[in-house]
Amino acid sequence: CVPRFWGPCAASPLASLQETLTGKYGEDAKLIYELQDQGGELLALRYDLTVPFARYLATNKITNMKRYHVAKVYRRDNPATTRGRYREFYQCDFDIAGRFDPMIPDAECLKIVHEVLSDLQLGDFLVKVNDRRVLNGVFAVCGVPESKFLTACSTVDKLDKMPWEEVRSEMVGEKGLSPEAADRIGEYVQLHGGLDLIERLLQDPKLSQNKLAKEGLGDMKLLFEYLTLFGITGKAVLLQQENAHVEESVSVGSVAGGGRYDGLVGMFDPKGRKVPCVGVSIGIERIFSILEQRAKASGEKVRATETEVLVATPQKHLLAARLKLISELWDAGIKAEMLYKKDPKLLKQLQYCEDTGIPLAAIVGEQELTDGVVKLRDVATREEVRM
Amino acid sequence: CVPRFWGPCAASPLASLQETLTGKYGEDAKLIYELQDQGGELLALRYDLTVPFARYLATNKITNMKRYHVAKVYRRDNPATTRGRYREFYQCDFDIAGRFDPMIPDAECLKIVHEVLSDLQLGDFLVKVNDRRVLNGVFAVCGVPESKFLTACSTVDKLDKMPWEEVRSEMVGEKGLSPEAADRIGEYVQLHGGLDLIERLLQDPKLSQNKLAKEGLGDMKLLFEYLTLFGITGKAVLLQQENAHVEESVSVGSVAGGGRYDGLVGMFDPKGRKVPCVGVSIGIERIFSILEQRAKASGEKVRATETEVLVATPQKHLLAARLKLISELWDAGIKAEMLYKKDPKLLKQLQYCEDTGIPLAAIVGEQELTDGVVKLRDVATREEVRM
Repeated sequence: CVPRFWGPCAASPLASLQETLTGKYGEDAKLIYELQDQGGELLALRYDLTVPFARYLATNKITNMKRYHVAKVYRRDNPATTRGRYREFYQCDFDIAGRFDPMIPDAECLKIVHEVLSDLQLGDFLVKVNDRRVLNGVFAVCGVPESKFLTACSTVDKLDKMPWEEVRSEMVGEKGLSPEAADRIGEYVQLHGGLDLIERLLQDPKLSQNKLAKEGLGDMKLLFEYLTLFGITGKAVLLQQENAHVEESVSVGSVAGGGRYDGLVGMFDPKGRKVPCVGVSIGIERIFSILEQRAKASGEKVRATETEVLVATPQKHLLAARLKLISELWDAGIKAEMLYKKDPKLLKQLQYCEDTGIPLAAIVGEQELTDGVVKLRDVATREEVRM
Repeated sequence: CVPRFWGPCAASPLASLQETLTGKYGEDAKLIYELQDQGGELLALRYDLTVPFARYLATNKITNMKRYHVAKVYRRDNPATTRGRYREFYQCDFDIAGRFDPMIPDAECLKIVHEVLSDLQLGDFLVKVNDRRVLNGVFAVCGVPESKFLTACSTVDKLDKMPWEEVRSEMVGEKGLSPEAADRIGEYVQLHGGLDLIERLLQDPKLSQNKLAKEGLGDMKLLFEYLTLFGITGKAVLLQQENAHVEESVSVGSVAGGGRYDGLVGMFDPKGRKVPCVGVSIGIERIFSILEQRAKASGEKVRATETEVLVATPQKHLLAARLKLISELWDAGIKAEMLYKKDPKLLKQLQYCEDTGIPLAAIVGEQELTDGVVKLRDVATREEVRM
């Protein structure tokens, strides 16, 4: 239940190993690849892009920045390639750092996730949004002692993977909550909804008396209003996750996550100066898994290149003509290829187009050279035009 | 004098350390970052993109491939950031693997380097091209014993950094060549030229008798003919370097290199099956160094973002109008920004445009909302249009 961007995480590639040992990644630090000490330098491979971003801000005393970053991160984990889990993989992060009016940058982050997932045509997806203050407020009004908030939270998180009954029995059994408190929590954490739910909770006789919960619900109301102005409507799942979450039907789990990390930059600053931050991270490999499984299921053929035209010759001794034409096409920004043979057979050249899905062949033979034209052939229909 | 792609180099990130120990990187292996043994896995960070590419081809039994790869590589070297030398940096590689007719893929590689450096407007550049067979032929006809070819070659390479007199004295002193042999070598290695020089060397009474040199010169003639067909003319420096080389007046050294590596794939194949390869690598950081120094010298201001328009409001309580408008602009693919403030002052918003170079401000005030228009302001000229 440690917020995703505070607890988990690790150092920049070739950044001081010290960073990884000062509690920025919590128990996930065991997944960090450490480099051999080669001359007094303790280094590690970066575990994510968030902690390095925070270090960058603190080191350069930047108090205000918006940036995206697409780069590889490394985790000494058990890979599961079919589900898009690798030891070396890309993260695509977008973060906004700085002291701003509440929920405006948060709304932009969710707008971007919505835009990316929509444009990729991944199908239906669900973004889970919550505010930790609301969940803590729920625990308080349900009679959970403050010392048990963290442990109760980590059990609630499991609602993602197991039904409420099991979560409840863990709360009462392992975590030592009273059955009454657990039942009251159950009433809240099984609620799903959007702006309507937030309004209802703001009217809740108990929760509306809790200062933190009220603040949290107020910010979530703002967030949902801003999202509506951005044209994003639809339900959100409240109270389960402390981060924005996106899920898909294919068994890859979530494909994006994010949240606020208002204290992380301060951990790198010698004077502890804070720079509030909010950001999202999108997992490309998991999205590729979904898209690949789709393409496979639909029998759709995916081309490996974007070549638009193959430059071909039908007779021998015409390599010079091919080189000249392909150079003209390249200079005009057209994606062109040719076979690296002096005298390839025309059939072989057309076969290559069919194998690789190149739609057009630009053919220069002796006749075309004499006439100063090119024969453009549509590979699929076999239609030809001289031009 | 070890060919750049055989001698220097290293393993894929998270690839078996074994690769780095089997002689693929020669004496440069000391620059490889090794990971700690964390559970029986000996791993290293990749040193370049060529050896991993060769390993990929051999492992997947691919005999035919053309690809580009832009990614980070790691070298445990002394960084010199002003000259674009880092421990973690990008390489941009283009390679063609497969058994083809001579010099056609080689010419394409040089065409690409020429295109990239021309498009980047780096100014004048020089591509040095050579064939090892020609240099070995020169050694042979100058009376160098075959056992001294390698050591003579590594001395000739220093012509890049020191004058011929010093190179000559190293040859005679340290390397033990006869003064006569050194003088004869000097006559050849100081030659610069293009197709004309190749033709002249093909007529050279001694060199034309040497089988290897003749083959090498024949291939170089082909290469230059193909480059001419690609519209690339100009001189090449012969005989100094075994690889294509690009140099610039700013003190970053070469910004690209490349060459053939016909044996590397075979080193990864259990049966030693060879896949001939040729490729080029472009150093982005060094090119950035040149471009940055230029921009600095010319006083040209480089924008950090590509934002086209700032969405602004001149009165209070108009955040909703800004959120709606910016969302429309984003959806239309226009690069738009707004300040993350509920009620920012107009002056502050326009100042932000000037500071960051945003050329336009789209202003929605109460009047514009009533009239259903937007006021578009040119930040530099202060001209405004309602639309």
